[in-house]
Formats: sequence, structure tokens, C-alpha cells
Amino acid sequence: MSAARTVSLAVPASERVIADLYELAARTATDGSIHGGGQRVAWGPIWREARAWFTEKVKTDLGLPVHVDPAGNAWVTLQGESDDSVVFGSHLDCVPSGGWLDGCLGVVAGIEVLRRHAAGGKSPVTLHLIDWADEEGARFGRSLAGSSSSAGTLDPHKELAHLVDRAGVKLPDALRENGVELDHMLDAHAYLLARKPKAYLELHIEQGPVLESLQEPTGVVLGTMGVERHMIRFKGQAVHAGATPIPLRQDAFLSAAEFALACRDIGLKFSGDTPRTRVVATCGVVKVEPGFVTAVPGFTEISLDMRALDAGVLAQMKAAAEEASHIAADRNGCSVAWEYIWQIEPRPFDPKLLEFCGEAVQQIVGRAPQLPSGPLHDAAEMAGIMPTVMMFAQSSPGISHTKLEDTPIPHLDKSIRAFQLLVEKTVAHVAGI
Amino acid sequence: MSAARTVSLAVPASERVIADLYELAARTATDGSIHGGGQRVAWGPIWREARAWFTEKVKTDLGLPVHVDPAGNAWVTLQGESDDSVVFGSHLDCVPSGGWLDGCLGVVAGIEVLRRHAAGGKSPVTLHLIDWADEEGARFGRSLAGSSSSAGTLDPHKELAHLVDRAGVKLPDALRENGVELDHMLDAHAYLLARKPKAYLELHIEQGPVLESLQEPTGVVLGTMGVERHMIRFKGQAVHAGATPIPLRQDAFLSAAEFALACRDIGLKFSGDTPRTRVVATCGVVKVEPGFVTAVPGFTEISLDMRALDAGVLAQMKAAAEEASHIAADRNGCSVAWEYIWQIEPRPFDPKLLEFCGEAVQQIVGRAPQLPSGPLHDAAEMAGIMPTVMMFAQSSPGISHTKLEDTPIPHLDKSIRAFQLLVEKTVAHVAGI
Repeated sequence: MSAARTVSLAVPASERVIADLYELAARTATDGSIHGGGQRVAWGPIWREARAWFTEKVKTDLGLPVHVDPAGNAWVTLQGESDDSVVFGSHLDCVPSGGWLDGCLGVVAGIEVLRRHAAGGKSPVTLHLIDWADEEGARFGRSLAGSSSSAGTLDPHKELAHLVDRAGVKLPDALRENGVELDHMLDAHAYLLARKPKAYLELHIEQGPVLESLQEPTGVVLGTMGVERHMIRFKGQAVHAGATPIPLRQDAFLSAAEFALACRDIGLKFSGDTPRTRVVATCGVVKVEPGFVTAVPGFTEISLDMRALDAGVLAQMKAAAEEASHIAADRNGCSVAWEYIWQIEPRPFDPKLLEFCGEAVQQIVGRAPQLPSGPLHDAAEMAGIMPTVMMFAQSSPGISHTKLEDTPIPHLDKSIRAFQLLVEKTVAHVAGI
Repeated sequence: MSAARTVSLAVPASERVIADLYELAARTATDGSIHGGGQRVAWGPIWREARAWFTEKVKTDLGLPVHVDPAGNAWVTLQGESDDSVVFGSHLDCVPSGGWLDGCLGVVAGIEVLRRHAAGGKSPVTLHLIDWADEEGARFGRSLAGSSSSAGTLDPHKELAHLVDRAGVKLPDALRENGVELDHMLDAHAYLLARKPKAYLELHIEQGPVLESLQEPTGVVLGTMGVERHMIRFKGQAVHAGATPIPLRQDAFLSAAEFALACRDIGLKFSGDTPRTRVVATCGVVKVEPGFVTAVPGFTEISLDMRALDAGVLAQMKAAAEEASHIAADRNGCSVAWEYIWQIEPRPFDPKLLEFCGEAVQQIVGRAPQLPSGPLHDAAEMAGIMPTVMMFAQSSPGISHTKLEDTPIPHLDKSIRAFQLLVEKTVAHVAGI
């Protein structure tokens, strides 16, 4: 560690983290500014530029190398007294023209955690910082490729081998360009387990409006919601809008409209009074045929995405939505068919780590609001194999996957400092102190 | 008239009309059969082929020439004792792959009317059969081009000059190919008026389900409904479907869904118990953005087409729909804007001709059901300048603008015979007999 600079513990952690985020944006955002739009799309040249910055930073500030595992995840290891380890991280990749904090906040905050631990003397347990590969799936459509390899839940030949980007590049070729072989990606699972990981921690921006609406800078994430995603198709009869009295119609769009409103009601009905019991239901895709001003719609396709932290509740919501679809179809003389798109189980986080996370946020903010995560994160994959927790920094505005995403600096500061505390508490716990 | 064949009045009118329709399909439908799909798109070669068949038929059977007026409408005149005239007709043009009766029924039935009048001795008034040009507007998008020229309501330079078909052909060039000059189209108005028209009659298929649902072969058409056509745009905020609790959303699609259901309720509420007071409201175009499974819709565009036979009722419906759009927007935290697309006044038909039409249908069928026409027809243009009425033949199935359109032969027979009676009654009335 002779090459490492020793950081001053007197300087607030957030100052260095925010300065680093500005540096990263300067190299990887469209106009080099934090709101210019990040272009760190996984497996591409600007993402590699972000990784080059990360590697230099870690080498300069910590004197440590970056190791890339068989799935393309980048690891930085600060050896402790014990090989038992606490793992934390997030992702440097982002969607095209993404926000300045999406994913990279957790990685860059992780560098500061390592800097402060390195400056403070040898840690009782080993610390691993991970920059997960291709969290977003922005180019090929499959998200969490790196962390699901490490978790052993990915089937690369079934889920990745056939994927092609818009330019016609095959995912296996893009992987190879980055030193990753499809055949060996799952070796990342053994790589992870060999590092004796005892806990996984992740700091991320919320990318939703909950903390902003509560005026809270930082929140404890209870887990990632399970998802039921389906495409529902209503079939009626296309007829002339002028010639057909309303009672004689089979209007597929009105079926879909009734269904969408019923799904909102289902979402509201199954949402309890606490953040833990909040659920969501969304119809985001709507396609109407024949789509003429003068034609009663004969066909409508509508998507449904339902999420809940409780698997039993999610199953009840799906059953209620199925019933609602049949009622909406029957009322309008239509038929309805469901097509399964995708499903994932809820991943509630570890009770002990939730406790530490709550204490850490409480110490910095004075309160510890809890909320579930609707969006998935790499932490959802880690929750399947070790105790895991996430912390959210407030988003303002509470939107996602746009360069307009932001977090006020005072809230970033509190969130970064709370995350440092969370790591310390977890290290002490894993070390048995 | 030496060239004319004298028809036998003993043969039912409908036999010859249906035989002629088969002949026409043999020359102008995709496979030459009545359900092969008519391809008589106005201003094109197959439409000209239909006109050639019409010209031959009229020459052979009646010894009469066809005159084409400055708007491209084809006229056949059977001179009577008086120049005062009764006008009837419909259109040989159709949409691509259209039905075997759409428009051509009225023209071909008109030939039979002339045949029978010619065989019966000189008529007290003159009869004009018109094949209107481009009723459908299928190629260039502006319907009723021929009849609105004759009515003097078209502004060819404003409404037609700029139109281009999918192949890039300009409408003025397509007109010129058929001997019609944009600059002279409105001369068709004087051409019509010079013929001293006292009444306009049109037989058409319903292309809707009303007569079928009433099990009636033939109906008296009360008028063409007025139309209010608008595009309504709801603007909310696109956010992540997982990250955003339902109460914090501004879902533009749910606004549109509530609006569409409210418009159906408005249509039902303003529909009275009689055919005359029936109204319709339709949302046929729905576009949702950003259109991702995981995004709450931030924008939705939805079309509204409302129709009623009473102008006051139509105005009330529009006001109610505007109010409903604001309620739907407010309930979902969205804004709403209306864009005017198109509007036409209701055209109620002439009371005296409605009486004759009712008597004629009653004599043949034993009942005389009434219904308004939601779709427009050339008769709507004629209603602006002379007493007008239409008669509908039942459609089964009650659909439109498809080669699947049909009318059972027994219903066709009754409708054709009733239309003959309507012409006779109208001729007697105009002649003052």
C-alpha cells in the first residue's frame, strides 16, 4: 500500500465522493457535466472509460489493483485481519443519457469507505468493493447480468447467448470484446463464494418520489419487491364508429380501460398503511387496433406490471387482476387472454442488517424512514445468497433513467455518511466485536 | 332509344339488379367473385373499368349515354314530360378490398329504376341517375369529393390541391388523368342546379348492426348524424412503475381511460329511446408514451368521435365530454388539451320524402323501421340543397369497409323493390299528380 495517499478523516466523506462523481462525469457524460447525460452503457467504450477512471482512482488513492471476475464484475479488496468479508458496491454502467448518480454513487461511495478504512488501520474483516457489470441491461435487454452470474441464478446460454443489440452486435461478441466468455460467466459464483462474504451492502439513489414526499434525505430499504409482469389481450369486434350503437359494440379498448382502472384499485386496495405493505400496479403499454378515429377498437393489448414485497400479497393481486380482466371482457362482449412476460420473487432484506441500517440513518438524520424498492438492484441477487441491505438517497425529482435525475447535495452528504456508519456497524458485527 | 332493350316488368327488379352486381364484381373484384374484395378505388384503373361497365350497361339496356360533369360525377338522364327532375344514385367507387354492395347497390338499382321507367312509357318528370365520384376518399383522404362539388360546399384549392397518395401522386394529377380539372370542379354545382332537381333519393347498405338486430330487411334513414371529432391529449409525468406509489403518480393513461369510459356514459345518457335520438361516442385512436412495461405513462393521446342527429344534443355531448376530460385530468394530476379535427352539422332528411320512404318500406316489408345514419353519404351533401332521403338495406354482418360485408338476398330483394316504390312515389309528388 506504499502508493496510497493517506486521506484525512477530518474531511467529510461526502466532499471527496461528490468531487469524484464530478470527475467521473467529466470523463463519461455527454458534455462532461453532471447533468449532461451519462453514457456509460455496459460493454461499450465509455463504460470502459469509466472503469479506467475507477482503476486509476483506486490505484492512486489506495494503492490497490482492480480484479475482474469471470462475469466482468470489477473487485477491489482491502484485506483485513480475517478473510471473512463485508461486500458492498453498485454499478458504474448506466442507461444512455442517464443520471449522474444512478449506480455510480454506490461505487464511488465505496471507494471512500475503503479510503477511510485504509487510513484508519487494518480492518478486522476483509472489505470488497464491487462494480457490478451490466446492471441496467440497457444495450441487450437483460439486466443484472453481472450480479446474477455471481449469485449463480443466471443461465447465460439460455438468457444471454441469443441477445443482439440495435446495431446487430451479438452479446457474446460484446462480452468477448471485454474479456468475458459466455461459457465461463458462472465461474463468478465460485469466485464470490471463495471470498467468504458475510454481508452485502448497497447505497443507491431512490429514483422514486417516496423520500422526497416524506422530506427525508435517506431511507432504509426493506427489500426489493416481487414482480408479476404480463401482457393482456382483449379481443372484440372492429366496427364503424358511426354505424354501431354503443349497446351493440364489442369495444376492446373500453375493456382495457376498465381493466386498467380496476388494476389501480387493486393496487390501492392491497397497499397497507406502512411502507412495507405498499404495492404498485401499472399499465404502461397500450396498443389499440385498428387505430382509426372512425373505428370502434376490435383489439387492445395492455401490459400489467404488479409489485409487492410480500409474495402472498402479490399472488392475491394477480388473482384479483385476472378476475378483473374477465369482468372487463364480459361487460364489453370481448374475450381476454393473458401472456406471461416475466416474474421474480420478492427479496426482503436481512433483519439484522435492517437494524444496523436503521441505526446508521437515525444517527445522521435523526429519523429512519423505511421503504421497499420497486425497481430491482444488484442487491436483490445478493439477497439470495447472503444477508443484504440497501440504503436509498432521496431523489429530487423522483424520476429515473433520465439525465434530470438529481439528489440535493445536503441529502447526498447525509446518505454517504450514513452509509459509512452502516459499513462500520456491519464490519463490527461480522468481526463479532 | 332505338338501341334499348325493353325489359320485362314481370321479372322482379331485384333479379336483374343482383345479376348486374355479379357482373360488376366479375370485372372489378380481386378474384371476380362478390366476396373477392372490390378494388374500385376512385380515379384508378379498376374504377375506370367499373365506369366502362356502367357505360356499356346503360347504352345496351337503355340506349342512353353517360355524361360526366366537371367534378367527375357520371350522369344518366331519362328525359320526362317536364325538365323538373328526381335525382337518385350512389357511388361505384369503394375502399380497397371493399364489399360487393357498398355504393354500387344504389347505382345498379338506379339502372333498374331507369329500365323500368323506360319500359313503362314517358315519365312525367325527368330522372337522373348519378354515380358520384370519390365518395370514399380512400386514396387521398377527402371523402364526398364529387357530391360536395355538386353541392357547392367543397373548396377544391383548399381541400384537395395539396393531397398526395401513398405512391406520391398528387390528387390534381389523378383528377387530370380522369379528365377532371381542379379549377373547374365547382362548375358541377351549376351543372346540377341546371337540371332542376326537386328530390334526391339514395339506396345504400347500412354497414352497421341496427337493422340486423331488429331483424328488419330495410329501413328508413332519418338523416345523417352531425359529427364532432377531436384529439384529446393528457399530460402527466412518466416515472418508474416500481418506484412510484400509486397516490404519487400523474398517470396520463388512467386519465384517458376514465375519459373514454365517461364518453361511453355520455353516449348512453344522451341516447333516447327512439332511433331518432340515438347518439354515439367513440375513442378509436389511443397512443401512450413512453410505452414501456416499466413506465407509468406520462402522455396519452386519445381521439373522440361523437355523432348525433340533433345539433343541440351534439353540442351538449361535446360540452359534457370537455367537462369529463377536465375531471379525468384533475383526478390524476394531469393536464388536458383538445385539438379540433373535424366537424359537420347533422343533416336531417326531408319530412315529405321520409313519409314516402316509410310508405314504400311498409308496402313491401309490412313495417317501416327508422334509423339515423352515423356514417356520411353523398345524400348528406344533397340534403343541403334539395329534399333528400335515404333507404338502408340490412347489413349482415353489420360491419363496414371490408369484403366480408354482406346482405342476404331476400333482404336485398325487398330493399330494391321498396326503393323502386320510393322513386315512383317521389316522381308522382314532384309531378304534382
